[in-house]
Amino acid sequence: MFIKKHQDQNSLARTGELTTAHGTIKTPTFMPVGTKATVKTLSNQEIKNIKSEIILANTYHLYLRPGADLVEKMGGLHKWMNHNIPMLTDSGGFQVFSLGRQGNVKIDDNGVTFKSHLDGSSHYFTPEKAIQIQHQLGADIIMAFDECAPADSSKEYFKKAMTRTHNWLIRSIKEHQKLLKDKESPLLFGIVQGGMHQDLRQESAKFINSLDLPGNAIGGLSVGESKKDMYEMISAVTPHLSENKPRYLMGVGTPEDLVEAISRGIDMFDCVNPTRIARHGSFWNQDGQHTIRNKRFEFDSAPLDQDCDCEACQNHSRSYIRHLLVEKEILGLRLLSIHNLHFLINLGRQSQEAIEKNQFQAFKDNFLSQYLQR
Amino acid sequence: MFIKKHQDQNSLARTGELTTAHGTIKTPTFMPVGTKATVKTLSNQEIKNIKSEIILANTYHLYLRPGADLVEKMGGLHKWMNHNIPMLTDSGGFQVFSLGRQGNVKIDDNGVTFKSHLDGSSHYFTPEKAIQIQHQLGADIIMAFDECAPADSSKEYFKKAMTRTHNWLIRSIKEHQKLLKDKESPLLFGIVQGGMHQDLRQESAKFINSLDLPGNAIGGLSVGESKKDMYEMISAVTPHLSENKPRYLMGVGTPEDLVEAISRGIDMFDCVNPTRIARHGSFWNQDGQHTIRNKRFEFDSAPLDQDCDCEACQNHSRSYIRHLLVEKEILGLRLLSIHNLHFLINLGRQSQEAIEKNQFQAFKDNFLSQYLQR
Repeated sequence: MFIKKHQDQNSLARTGELTTAHGTIKTPTFMPVGTKATVKTLSNQEIKNIKSEIILANTYHLYLRPGADLVEKMGGLHKWMNHNIPMLTDSGGFQVFSLGRQGNVKIDDNGVTFKSHLDGSSHYFTPEKAIQIQHQLGADIIMAFDECAPADSSKEYFKKAMTRTHNWLIRSIKEHQKLLKDKESPLLFGIVQGGMHQDLRQESAKFINSLDLPGNAIGGLSVGESKKDMYEMISAVTPHLSENKPRYLMGVGTPEDLVEAISRGIDMFDCVNPTRIARHGSFWNQDGQHTIRNKRFEFDSAPLDQDCDCEACQNHSRSYIRHLLVEKEILGLRLLSIHNLHFLINLGRQSQEAIEKNQFQAFKDNFLSQYLQR
Repeated sequence: MFIKKHQDQNSLARTGELTTAHGTIKTPTFMPVGTKATVKTLSNQEIKNIKSEIILANTYHLYLRPGADLVEKMGGLHKWMNHNIPMLTDSGGFQVFSLGRQGNVKIDDNGVTFKSHLDGSSHYFTPEKAIQIQHQLGADIIMAFDECAPADSSKEYFKKAMTRTHNWLIRSIKEHQKLLKDKESPLLFGIVQGGMHQDLRQESAKFINSLDLPGNAIGGLSVGESKKDMYEMISAVTPHLSENKPRYLMGVGTPEDLVEAISRGIDMFDCVNPTRIARHGSFWNQDGQHTIRNKRFEFDSAPLDQDCDCEACQNHSRSYIRHLLVEKEILGLRLLSIHNLHFLINLGRQSQEAIEKNQFQAFKDNFLSQYLQR
């Protein structure tokens, strides 16, 4: 359950504690994504070292391979991964609908037929099925099955997809309650949709919020729209989502988006961005985003970030890490992944401290003025 | 310097201690290869955790990229890698001559012209140059520049290559002494050549041994010959190499070859094999070499090796590691690399214990009867 701890006096930012079956998460926080039941390149110990309090896994990927039956038979995600940390699974909705762009998806009010990106085999997901799979996987927080309409859809279609998402949420809740029996977990979150339309977003937020779920999420953002548009949608939605429930902005993961969304009342974030840009040789520090392959780092004996206490910054120079990336050595991908995840998680923790002191606005302005200076 | 500690009573196996500028190595031991100044997939801490006492780096690769000048400017390998462990660099000879098969190498008595595998650029190595580069890299043990003749060469050519290797060793020693000045490190090792010809191998061993270097190596084995032939060559050579110097068998790295060579008086080994087979999904345990992708491991909750205390075996099941390999997830490559390196290093340590008790022959027979049973 969620307890709101402190409301910043000059913004919608707040701190809170979300308790799950595997522990309590302090918010605002960034959640590393472990798509296939592994946060790319990191060990469980490293996830602990970067002070991650919760990780994600993806239902779509695990359903296709190795299959939810295997994970369930092996004792669920926690036991199979040997990781006793809060976990969240998404519903598979986002992945299924991303495939729609290749014309491989058929949607009706009952569910979605899609083709596997692995072997082209045909599969059928319903809200019930998505909930069943997530119960098999055994995460602490699970997500309702939603329709994420393409960014270029008409407003009419966004409304249709939103309504369908709402109906699917009702069915998700019923299936979830059936499976819960006497258990207290997992916690089910609903998802606000509505594209880039403030009125739809508000309508969706009010509906989702009315169902009094343990948490409310915002989906369908950070899908190509401008940052300004994204921030406006967040601002339109959060006032309609209960103060006493965690607010989870799905798929968002840059430093600037984190602080902007926190100031608008968001508590939880996830994104593959930190590990993905790491694999492309990019890293963040207070001065912005940089490419380690840049020639200027060749003889640079400084750490990636002077103020950072992650394993990469405590042990290695930009010169050495640059060499590892140039040579495509796995240790290089590891070090940049650790650093980038640590950077976002630490940004969440720094935000918590600033909020507790009612100084979040100054913290945010200060951070952005240096981070975006270039 | 090397101190022989204990001679097994029933074989040529012995224990010893080799002291370098960065610490003392107990032998027999396996040395992980960090070709490009990183042991593939492992962090420094993991190298410590698997109780590796020394690691290698490759002169050829580092010379081409990032260049020995960069490594020297950054303070040498230890400082650049931030790893305070004994290190050994090879001379580049093996790599340069492997390129010969593509017709990209010209050898004369003075040195070798070769083309970079990276960009086709032309380079010239002499024994002096190979020693200079290794002094720049700053390892604790360096190797003389040798000619590794192709396996299908005539006996006449093997003799010619051996003689050239001997002459190059004299020049390597001179250059090394010039660069040493008042320093005590690095230690220079010579390399025995001679193909699969016992008489040449013995001639080469006697010559190399007569130069009274801090250590003697055997090159040009494990290059495609039968295991029987390789073991015969080792048996022909070791009696001619001083008991009071470490004997290093280059490029050897399977469990069975380790115990066979140890029984013939070998003290040091290196090979990319443990990390390479890991990347292909293979691992060792007492029962032999296995492929983790095998369907029979799908629901297997046992560790890779029941008797192993490495990070992979202490934390993860075959089922989970199999999934990681199937999904090409980096954590899977990490876990198998750690396990395989630990397996060989532990085999060295178990051999040390058996030798100290004069039970090496029984240890070896017992190990091989189970390992080779299939």
